[in-house]
Order: sequence, then C-alpha cells, then structure tokens
Amino acid sequence: MPATSAPRVDGERLLRRLDELAAVGAIEGTRGCRRLALTDEDRAGRDLVVTWMRDLGLEVSVDAVGNVVARQRWPDATAPVLTGSHIDTVATGGRYDGNLGVLAGLEVVETVLASGLELDRPLAVAFFTDEEGARFPPDMLGSLVYVGGMTVEQAHAVTDRDGLRLGDELDRIGYLGPAPCPGPAPHAFVELHIEQGPVLETRGHRIGAVTGVQGISWTEFTVTGQSNHAGTTPLDMRHDAGLVAARVAVAVRELARQLGGAQVATVGRLDLHPDLVNVVAGRATFTVDLRNTDEAVLAEAERRLADVVAAEAAAEGVEVSSRPLARFAPVDFDRRIVDLVAAVAASQGHEALRLPSGAGHDAQMLARVCPTGMIFVPSRGGISHNPAEHTDPDDLVAGAQVLAETLVRLASGALDDPEVRP
Amino acid sequence: MPATSAPRVDGERLLRRLDELAAVGAIEGTRGCRRLALTDEDRAGRDLVVTWMRDLGLEVSVDAVGNVVARQRWPDATAPVLTGSHIDTVATGGRYDGNLGVLAGLEVVETVLASGLELDRPLAVAFFTDEEGARFPPDMLGSLVYVGGMTVEQAHAVTDRDGLRLGDELDRIGYLGPAPCPGPAPHAFVELHIEQGPVLETRGHRIGAVTGVQGISWTEFTVTGQSNHAGTTPLDMRHDAGLVAARVAVAVRELARQLGGAQVATVGRLDLHPDLVNVVAGRATFTVDLRNTDEAVLAEAERRLADVVAAEAAAEGVEVSSRPLARFAPVDFDRRIVDLVAAVAASQGHEALRLPSGAGHDAQMLARVCPTGMIFVPSRGGISHNPAEHTDPDDLVAGAQVLAETLVRLASGALDDPEVRP
Repeated sequence: MPATSAPRVDGERLLRRLDELAAVGAIEGTRGCRRLALTDEDRAGRDLVVTWMRDLGLEVSVDAVGNVVARQRWPDATAPVLTGSHIDTVATGGRYDGNLGVLAGLEVVETVLASGLELDRPLAVAFFTDEEGARFPPDMLGSLVYVGGMTVEQAHAVTDRDGLRLGDELDRIGYLGPAPCPGPAPHAFVELHIEQGPVLETRGHRIGAVTGVQGISWTEFTVTGQSNHAGTTPLDMRHDAGLVAARVAVAVRELARQLGGAQVATVGRLDLHPDLVNVVAGRATFTVDLRNTDEAVLAEAERRLADVVAAEAAAEGVEVSSRPLARFAPVDFDRRIVDLVAAVAASQGHEALRLPSGAGHDAQMLARVCPTGMIFVPSRGGISHNPAEHTDPDDLVAGAQVLAETLVRLASGALDDPEVRP
Repeated sequence: MPATSAPRVDGERLLRRLDELAAVGAIEGTRGCRRLALTDEDRAGRDLVVTWMRDLGLEVSVDAVGNVVARQRWPDATAPVLTGSHIDTVATGGRYDGNLGVLAGLEVVETVLASGLELDRPLAVAFFTDEEGARFPPDMLGSLVYVGGMTVEQAHAVTDRDGLRLGDELDRIGYLGPAPCPGPAPHAFVELHIEQGPVLETRGHRIGAVTGVQGISWTEFTVTGQSNHAGTTPLDMRHDAGLVAARVAVAVRELARQLGGAQVATVGRLDLHPDLVNVVAGRATFTVDLRNTDEAVLAEAERRLADVVAAEAAAEGVEVSSRPLARFAPVDFDRRIVDLVAAVAASQGHEALRLPSGAGHDAQMLARVCPTGMIFVPSRGGISHNPAEHTDPDDLVAGAQVLAETLVRLASGALDDPEVRP
C-alpha cells in the first residue's frame, strides 16, 4: 500500500444528511422513502442535494437526462475520480439504497476539501437519473445514457404508466440540463452501496469488495393446457398448465444447484387461470430469473431451462410460449480497483469479502467507459426495496471511510502504481 | 330382467323444453345460461318448469327452502319413485347441467301418464334449490336440507356476497313454500345428469351407470418464507415459499399416481406474494383438491399430503399453515340400482360404463334416505360449468329413455325382485 491516507470522514454529518434526505418523500410510519424518478419528491430530493453540492463550492453540471455531476474545481479539464449513485427510490423504498453512495461521496469530498489534502486529480460526485426504473423503464437509465448506451431522444421518449414522457417530466421539475450526453469519461468510478442481500451479514463482513455484476436473463413463459373439472377429469386425460409451471419451478432450482458457483435462479411470479380450487388450470404464466457472473454458464442455464420447459410441456401435452423480458451480460469490475478496495478495507481493520453484485447498479454502466469498482456494506436480513431496509450506522460510516481512502488513492495515481496491480 | 317396459319418450318435446328453459337467463352470443339460485332469472326458470308440472296435472309442493316436488296424483301416501336434479346454474353455466335431469324426469312422467301404464307406485320429479352453491354456499344446499342434513334456519341464514339472506331471497321470488323439511323419503331416487367429465366420450360409451360419488378433501395451505432479492440472495440462504408450493404441487400429482385407482389430486389455485419476477416469493397460498371413491385411500392421500408438505417446508426452512375448506366422505349408490341402470341400458342397446362421479350431485344427499342411483350421458370434451358445455341430442334422448325404463321398473317392484339383486 502507498502511504497516502485520507482524513477521517465526519460520520455524524453523513448520518444527519442521510436523515435529512430521507425526510423528503418519507413514508409515514416507516423509515422508508418514496421518491420515484422525476416526481415532485424527486425534485425536492435533488434540490436538497444540489444545495449541499453548491455549498461546498463544487462545479455542478446537469445533463440532458438530468444526471447531476458535482466536480471539485480544478485548473484544467483533468478527468476526475468519480463517485456517486442515485437518489430516486422504488415506490416503497428504503433510505440507503443509492442515497448512501451519493451522500457518502459528498462527505468524502467535503472531508478532503476541509483537510487541504492535495490530489493529482479532482474528485467528483454524481447522482444518476432513474436508476430504479420503477417509473421509467429500463433501470439504470441515466447512467446508461451517460455512457452512450441509449440516446437522449430515446430516453426522453420513455413514458410512465400514465403516459407522461420522461423528457417532459425532466423539464417540468427543472432538471433538463445543458450538459451533453454521453458525458465525459471519468478517470475511474467507485460506487458505495448497500448490499441489498444477506451475504455480508451472514458471513460476518462489514465491507464487500464487489467483483462485478451478475448477468441477468429474464423470461416469461405462458403455458396453455386445458381447464377441466378437478373431480371428473382422470389424471391421464389432463393437460394441467399449473402442474407444468410447478415442475419447471422445481427444475429451475435444481438446474441452478447443478450449475453451482454464482448461478441463481428464481420463479418469482406464477399466476394460474382460472385459479380455482376445483378446476385444473388451463393457463399458467410464470417468470424465470437467471443470473450468473459467468456469461458462458448463464447461457448454459438458459439452454437447460429451454430443454426442461420443452420436456415438461411434452410430458403433459400442453403448449408453451416464451417472451424475453430482459438480458444483460455479466460485468467484471476492474481487478485493480477490486484489489484496492480490499487493501484499503484491510488497512482500516476490515477483512473485505469479495463478492459479485446480484442487483444492477450505475457502476455497471460506468464500467463501459472507465476502470470501475464498488464497495458494499451489509443490509440487515438482506432486506431491500422495502421501508424496513436497514444498515447499521457504524457500517455506513465504515463504508464511507473505505470510499474516502479508495478515492484519494485513485486521485493520487493508484492506477499507475504497479504496487496495487494484481 | 322383468318384462315391464316403458313407452318411448318424446325426444323432440324434451329437446324443445331444454331450449325453452335455456332461453331464460341465456348468455348472449353463447348457448350458456346464467340463472344463479334465487335470482330473478332463477324465478323465471322455476315458474316455467312449475307451469309445465301443473299442466301435467301433477301435485306440486314447495318446501321451506324452495325445493319443488311434482308428484303423480295417487289415492294414498305411497312413497313415490323420485327423479330430478336442479335448474340453478353457475354464473357462466351450460344449458344441460341439472336442467336435463329435471326436464327428462318431466318427460318420463308425461310419457307414462299419456301411455296409461299402471305402476305400483307414483312417479315424482323434483328440482332442488341452489345445487351449485355458486351464490349461497354450500353446494347441494336444497337437497341437503331435504334429507335433514341442515336445518331450515341454518339454510335461511346463509348470505350471498352482497349480504342478502337466502331466506329473504326465497320469500322475494315467491318460493318460500309450506312443505316441511326434511321432506318425505322417496321409495327410490334416480338422477339423470351430464357427466361433466371426459370419460364416457373418451371410452366410447353413451350411458354411464354411476356407482357413487367421490369423497372430497379440500385444503388451503399458506407457506410463509422470506421475500428476498432474486439476484442478491444465494440459493442456500433462501426460504422460497413459491418453490415449496411448486414442490408440493408436483408431489400431489405423484401421490395420486402412486395411489392409483380413482384417486385424483389437483392444485388449482396458487398465488404468490409479492409475485414479481425479481423477488423470491415470501408467501404462497395454494389449494389441494383430493378425491377418491374409497374413504380409506382418501384418508391415506391426506396423510401423505401432510407428510410431503411438512418435509418440503422443513427442507426450505419455511412455515406452513393449513385450513380445511371441505371434506365429504365418498357415497356409494345402491348396488341394485346401479345394476338396474346397466341392465336397462343394455336392453336398449347401450353398453353402460360403470363409473363414479367426480362432481357432487343432489343424488348423493338423497342416498342418505333412500336407495339411489344416477345415469350419466357424455359431455363433449369433458367441458362443464362453461357456456361451451355440450351433449349430443341423441345422447340426451338416450339418457331420458334409460331413465324412463329405470323409473318404471322401480315403480313396478324392481327393488323387491330378487332377479335384479346383485
């Protein structure tokens, strides 16, 4: 490890800002938040965070899809070390998902500025528009546009359930900015986020050095059998759509277990029709969510799933149609940054767990244009996208301190230092 | 076979009456009917059938739950040979379910009266209230009260979804009659009904000699696991309520197959919560419908089901609660009447298939108080409780002719004749 060391972040100030932001769109009677992208609540949250950014004297830019980047003032156009995340939430969200990464980034910048520490590069902190995709699909829309994966025109044309256009809503809330998209590539990007899963807590780690983001394959299947009387139809005359769905659901777990490693597989939605106690289901609709960090294995999982579905359909004499809902290849984070996060955590007394992210994050988009990594802190009980989402204050502050040191090192030539290379 | 022979029924007249009754509450654009019990449509259907009964000079009585019995006039109180069924339908019902048994009974009585045939006992034809139970649970309510299985007070207190009382609705439509319940036990009861299943059609029989009614066991299970992120939750940390429901659904079919014989088993309802593609289901509610003609095997199926549920719940680390929804023991029809139906069918050139009924019928209630049997005719594609329900006219008339001969023989001392005993 090089000797460079970041000053200590102000944990109290970070927690206070998390509380203040969580008060915007707070869900009464819970600790949760509802700040769907580009609503009045999102605007109020944005205004609060932008005020804090400006109070620190940062150069704030808003781009054509409302991404906000606050950059340490610098004499030239040197690419910054960027951190950040998002501040929009799902309809019944928690207070840390996204928000932690933005406000911890702000805290690191404030701490570094106050300390007078001299860096080789500026720091910058961003929040990206509509990461959740809960109002305007797809998720991670803002960071996708930032890296050039979607045009501004495409993004503006996306509509919510009420038919409102994203572009119009951006304009309405005052966040249709002048900065161009795609945005400038940072020197590096590191995002602090809650894990949203149970692994760190269960394995007793305070810090996760995130190795990448799982690839995702979502498929919806519709099984068409024959609706029949449950009492009068002998077993061998049935074409039970519900049974086929159930058999596939059981096979999906088995398939994931056989593939092993990071492979997960879930049947989370399953609807029968007519869904009556005494009627053999004539139709079943269900989804399969497959994820893996390894693209080849993910593709193998998809093949095995297709085989299972075909075999079970034939055995019961039903028809099955399928519809792809989403498909993303896995993302590997920059190995140097993963190692740096682990080394920084160790220097602060935390043995980091290396783990992939099962959820999508803005970092996976930024990984297309610059060396990228993520830091995870534990989610109690693995609960997320829920007002009950919780991370212990000590873990929040510990994550911010690891972020501070990581950013400082990246802004001090860490990526050019052979010592931190694997 | 004794020599007594019934005259030929008038098939055209039977089909015409079926059409006329089907026009009451007809579902536009279909051949189906909607005459839920004690609605205005049911009243109109009842009025039409009662008019036909009176036109034949029958003695019509209406009892305290609206069951209507039309009896051939007779010099004394000799117990009649009773036939009949119901004329209420489910919300999207067919035109023959129930109605066939009532109108074929009427046709037999008219034919016998017109022929001047002398019988030892009077014939009678009934329609029982609310057989479907689609508006007022339970199903077969009218015949249950007729045989003393439920009091008039209990029946009157039953409410529909809008909170309307059965007693008030009976009064409103003018069918709160003076005849007492339980009603007088007939000498014998025979019901003609469509099969509502595919067995006769598939095996190529026109007439079924029904051996009894399957016992029914309905249970609702609620699985409580843990709702988790489908991407971030490793397989070995999951408590997937949906997977447990699916495993039980698969095991239920296997259990039925292993028990063999008449055992059927169905998971017709299955609801996940939150039912989202990327969330491991935290809760699953599903029903299991078990049916068998053999009480001991049905009880064994229940035990095996309970074992499977407990084992699957333990394996996945979830809690399961269960709630019995219905439990009826199997009913065996009178062996002499089953044999009589088969013999009559054979004498008319039909090889009857002996089969149990998978659905419930008024006959299973009457079986508590008198020798009882049923005659089935085929349902095309096994479809029932559906406007697409269909039985070929030739089959309808053939069933009525078998009913005629069966009733005539029962009213001519068949049950006292050692020749027809098994």
